[in-house]
Amino acid sequence: MTVDYTAMWQDLGLDLAAHEGLLTVLGAAYDEVYLSQQNRPEGMSYFDFCVSEIHGLRVKELMDAKAAGRKVVGSFCLYVPEEIILAANGIAVGLCSGADMGSAHSGRLLPKNTCAMIRSFVDFKLAKVCPYMEASDLVIGETTCDGKKKAYEIFGELHNTFVLEVPHTKSEAARVLWRSELDRLVARVEDLSGVAITAEGLAEGIRIANAKRAALQRLARLRAASPAPLSGRDALLINQIQFYDDPTRFTGSLNALCDELDERVQRGEGVAPAGTPRVLVSGCPMSAPNWKIPFLLERSGGVIVGEESCVGERGTRNLVPEVDGSRERLLDAIAERYLKIDCAVFTPNEERIDHVVAMARDLNADGVLHYVIQFCTPYATEAYRVDEALRAEGLPLLKLETDYSMEDTGALETRIQAFLEMLRAKRGE
Amino acid sequence: MTVDYTAMWQDLGLDLAAHEGLLTVLGAAYDEVYLSQQNRPEGMSYFDFCVSEIHGLRVKELMDAKAAGRKVVGSFCLYVPEEIILAANGIAVGLCSGADMGSAHSGRLLPKNTCAMIRSFVDFKLAKVCPYMEASDLVIGETTCDGKKKAYEIFGELHNTFVLEVPHTKSEAARVLWRSELDRLVARVEDLSGVAITAEGLAEGIRIANAKRAALQRLARLRAASPAPLSGRDALLINQIQFYDDPTRFTGSLNALCDELDERVQRGEGVAPAGTPRVLVSGCPMSAPNWKIPFLLERSGGVIVGEESCVGERGTRNLVPEVDGSRERLLDAIAERYLKIDCAVFTPNEERIDHVVAMARDLNADGVLHYVIQFCTPYATEAYRVDEALRAEGLPLLKLETDYSMEDTGALETRIQAFLEMLRAKRGE
Repeated sequence: MTVDYTAMWQDLGLDLAAHEGLLTVLGAAYDEVYLSQQNRPEGMSYFDFCVSEIHGLRVKELMDAKAAGRKVVGSFCLYVPEEIILAANGIAVGLCSGADMGSAHSGRLLPKNTCAMIRSFVDFKLAKVCPYMEASDLVIGETTCDGKKKAYEIFGELHNTFVLEVPHTKSEAARVLWRSELDRLVARVEDLSGVAITAEGLAEGIRIANAKRAALQRLARLRAASPAPLSGRDALLINQIQFYDDPTRFTGSLNALCDELDERVQRGEGVAPAGTPRVLVSGCPMSAPNWKIPFLLERSGGVIVGEESCVGERGTRNLVPEVDGSRERLLDAIAERYLKIDCAVFTPNEERIDHVVAMARDLNADGVLHYVIQFCTPYATEAYRVDEALRAEGLPLLKLETDYSMEDTGALETRIQAFLEMLRAKRGE
Repeated sequence: MTVDYTAMWQDLGLDLAAHEGLLTVLGAAYDEVYLSQQNRPEGMSYFDFCVSEIHGLRVKELMDAKAAGRKVVGSFCLYVPEEIILAANGIAVGLCSGADMGSAHSGRLLPKNTCAMIRSFVDFKLAKVCPYMEASDLVIGETTCDGKKKAYEIFGELHNTFVLEVPHTKSEAARVLWRSELDRLVARVEDLSGVAITAEGLAEGIRIANAKRAALQRLARLRAASPAPLSGRDALLINQIQFYDDPTRFTGSLNALCDELDERVQRGEGVAPAGTPRVLVSGCPMSAPNWKIPFLLERSGGVIVGEESCVGERGTRNLVPEVDGSRERLLDAIAERYLKIDCAVFTPNEERIDHVVAMARDLNADGVLHYVIQFCTPYATEAYRVDEALRAEGLPLLKLETDYSMEDTGALETRIQAFLEMLRAKRGE
């Protein structure tokens, strides 16, 4: 970054020394994980730029928007409908929750058996190092898992917070409850922004969010090609950046990259030689800058061809139908779209099992890596059903459970290498 | 047991050798924890008898009732309304989930970070040692916590199971959802039993359950006396037995015990000398035969005066109003009563914080022991708010997290002894 943003960070109340430390670590990790890659598409330069300005230019844009009266709304979950935030001329951002801040702070507030993602967002808040969080006029939480549901009670003492009730099932009664939660959210966002949420506003929000998701779907489909035209690391990064970049600019840049990848696929050009074991990653979200598993897997000679994850196809699979209609009708369509998300917090959740199998087939994966953040009960328990389904399909599965620390990378890498070796041997059969 | 129940256990499909082993361990633990106590009220002899016949006579009663066409319905949670089961002439039983069966079986099905209670019930099923589970025509699960919600998907492959959706909040929309879940349960229980659930049946079910809870409330109030007329171990046992004994017989026996305790209180007689530190236990349920913490605490020279727990006042605090009315009106009253339960899975859950403080005051407790089963995220996270509230009241708190194993008893006892010493010193101030 050539511009000095220190004054902006100071105005946001960041702990400048801790923030500087975070940026240094982040920069070094990015060099190692990303810039070391060979044969990257040129279109990735936009996303490299996004990362280089993640705490700079993009935050400046948010601050300028706030100065112009717009509101910034942060969240940690796919179940927060960005269409509603966009309809109030707001800016939706996914908040920092992908780095280990050492739990020096959250250890006082949260049990030690709390998952790394939840610990991370509470730590980011307490350590005052996330400009997106500090810029957020409101954080929208949800009741998805026990850990987040209860952590928001504590987080709510630290930041202006609104919690959406996401039901446990997709029954008719649960749909009615969820639909009523969107009314409650609309009222809160209107109150925050002073902007009336209209049918026109929602239609525009739907259009913007759909275009972004359609571009991400396009990217996902291109990765079915062999050789894979893009690394899994880069695809994950793009999926992470969608949560904080300007959505329309992001969509344009992603479509430009996809044009380039289209040409690559036609030329039969890829990021890894033919015969490289192709892996679908399934399970818990990898929030930025959580790149640990993809880096280890690709460094070990595999290539990731899809993410069955919140930061991946779980969030992009479904669009909202672009219907004309009243505000209520549009909110109905939004409510319905969101309840299609196959998060493991739902019971039953057969859709997800079907999706894992279908994605592995569609993307020509040789095997599946099931990723669980330690202490994430929903995904850890659902892994049993995933395992059963993949066995029935003859698809090898590697289950990994880890946190954000780097202490277990050696052990993880050994298991990943053995898995890739097995996939290569299976191919040779 | 003088009668030989082997044939009955065999008919139930129990693993006879494993079951024999369980009974032996249980008998030895009961001798150590219960029969070693001094100065127990005579009325406890009924409850000793219940334990001695826990897998004998009571199971025989269930089997006789089944032979006569009645249905046995098992559950693991206060949120399963027994009034509805009673209204269909069914028998409600709380199922075994309080002993460590070694996870030899469930380890294949559940993540290692699953709480001991959930592991226990899956182990009991797989090990075929719980006659109540095998006698159950239906098991009713619920979506209360992530662990149970997802474990029931796997358990449902092993046993006839019905899962109730318990919402995350107590909003109007959540109440509507919960009320509709009771309709779904009524239909399922009617289908199972062939008995139409009527207003009269519900009124009778309400009367029986209320009488039981009123007797338990009476017991709870008597423990406010100093010296405490009953040990915490015995009170816990009574609270555990309520889940599998015949409710009307249980109520009669408990009221007889309370008559005796009334006299004890008037005579100023108790189970522990005046000056014994009085402790309120708060937090996770202690299902039979989970007596570890109360045994350690009372052996160390304290006395437990109340259980802010599912196996304790959380389940007995509220009665259903005994109103006349239609079936729908009675179901409304039942729905409302159950949503008063202050389980930590709800957000927000201020009621529980208030209840902990009020119980500590009403029962003249010197301090609170907050008990968490390891990996129980809701109670572990809520402990922070409990801690805050008790600090504000000047009430000392000891937070213990453990499982069902006996490996940590030394460490736990050391911490408990230090806590009791501190309470004694505080009294002396």
